[in-house]
Amino acid sequence: MSKRIAGPEIERLIQLLAKVPGLGPRSARRAALHLIKKKEQLLSPLAAAMSEAADKVRICSTCGNVDTADPCMICTDPRRDAGTIIVVEDVSDLWALERAAAMNVRYHVLGGTLSPLDGIGPDQLNIRSLIDRVAGGEVKEIILAVNATVEGQTTAHYLTDQLSGFDIKVTRLAHGVPVGGELDYLDEGTLAAALRSRTAF
Amino acid sequence: MSKRIAGPEIERLIQLLAKVPGLGPRSARRAALHLIKKKEQLLSPLAAAMSEAADKVRICSTCGNVDTADPCMICTDPRRDAGTIIVVEDVSDLWALERAAAMNVRYHVLGGTLSPLDGIGPDQLNIRSLIDRVAGGEVKEIILAVNATVEGQTTAHYLTDQLSGFDIKVTRLAHGVPVGGELDYLDEGTLAAALRSRTAF
Repeated sequence: MSKRIAGPEIERLIQLLAKVPGLGPRSARRAALHLIKKKEQLLSPLAAAMSEAADKVRICSTCGNVDTADPCMICTDPRRDAGTIIVVEDVSDLWALERAAAMNVRYHVLGGTLSPLDGIGPDQLNIRSLIDRVAGGEVKEIILAVNATVEGQTTAHYLTDQLSGFDIKVTRLAHGVPVGGELDYLDEGTLAAALRSRTAF
Repeated sequence: MSKRIAGPEIERLIQLLAKVPGLGPRSARRAALHLIKKKEQLLSPLAAAMSEAADKVRICSTCGNVDTADPCMICTDPRRDAGTIIVVEDVSDLWALERAAAMNVRYHVLGGTLSPLDGIGPDQLNIRSLIDRVAGGEVKEIILAVNATVEGQTTAHYLTDQLSGFDIKVTRLAHGVPVGGELDYLDEGTLAAALRSRTAF
């Protein structure tokens, strides 16, 4: 705001809200006003939920997931197949795969991708801990669910090399036409991959 | 999420964030993850700022603004002209006018517009308190800065009626071409109003 029109508490709230992804300076003001108007229903409960999350959230020392327990709920869930680990770049990818609810397995969060130019080498990612889990002997398959970007694929190749000494299967996600997608709007690379990996009808 | 993959604290944080205007269910998850990753820099300070705002924010009993003081900073600012009151529908309009920083005056927040179908009559708005402020004798001009909607204009006419007994000037915002606006994209009503209110060049 160009001049002070409200107490510093409100301006600080707006400044911090503007740093939340999805909100900018303008929507942060709108959000702050809405929160203030809904003090009992939203502002106070949200403050309490944030404070509780800040207190309790841990990074799982086994897989790198975020949870309020360490090891996390996924690593300690006895109904999940401990023989299969899906390797993802980020916790958001883990959450996306869990929403798909396609496989009842475990995960490993790398925390990024190899990017030498940005100074991100193997030691900056959770790769050592993945090798250790595989060396434990229980793992039968590693599914590399990294993004289909250059960095993601570079990381996938590096991991395949590192895991080549173990008697496990290393797989990756299929490329192809998104469900509901129209061929007309797809790039040539995806279409070529979908043709190569065609399946019996 | 289709199944529980994280502690209830994280899911509650996501649910509450999804109620913030500007965030939906998907961006709430992204925001929650970002907040959790930036625990020290963002999550904890934001929780504290929200809790402090919830504690301290008041509605100004004079003008209806939100602030941490009552009367608010605007109503108690001696450098503002107490003879002019800008009447707005909502605190967000007050903030918008303050960002424009065009006039150093006071405000009055109605808290909505007259809307008989929704059960909003004069008693549901801060109209009584506006009349009382005018009756106090210090006010020389009321600027009706309500939205240019049917409800806004209905409310403006009602207020003009109510204020007709006082020896004050009642004005409203000018209609016209927005600064930087292209005529081609403007509606006929705005263009006609801009023509009627043309000024010497």
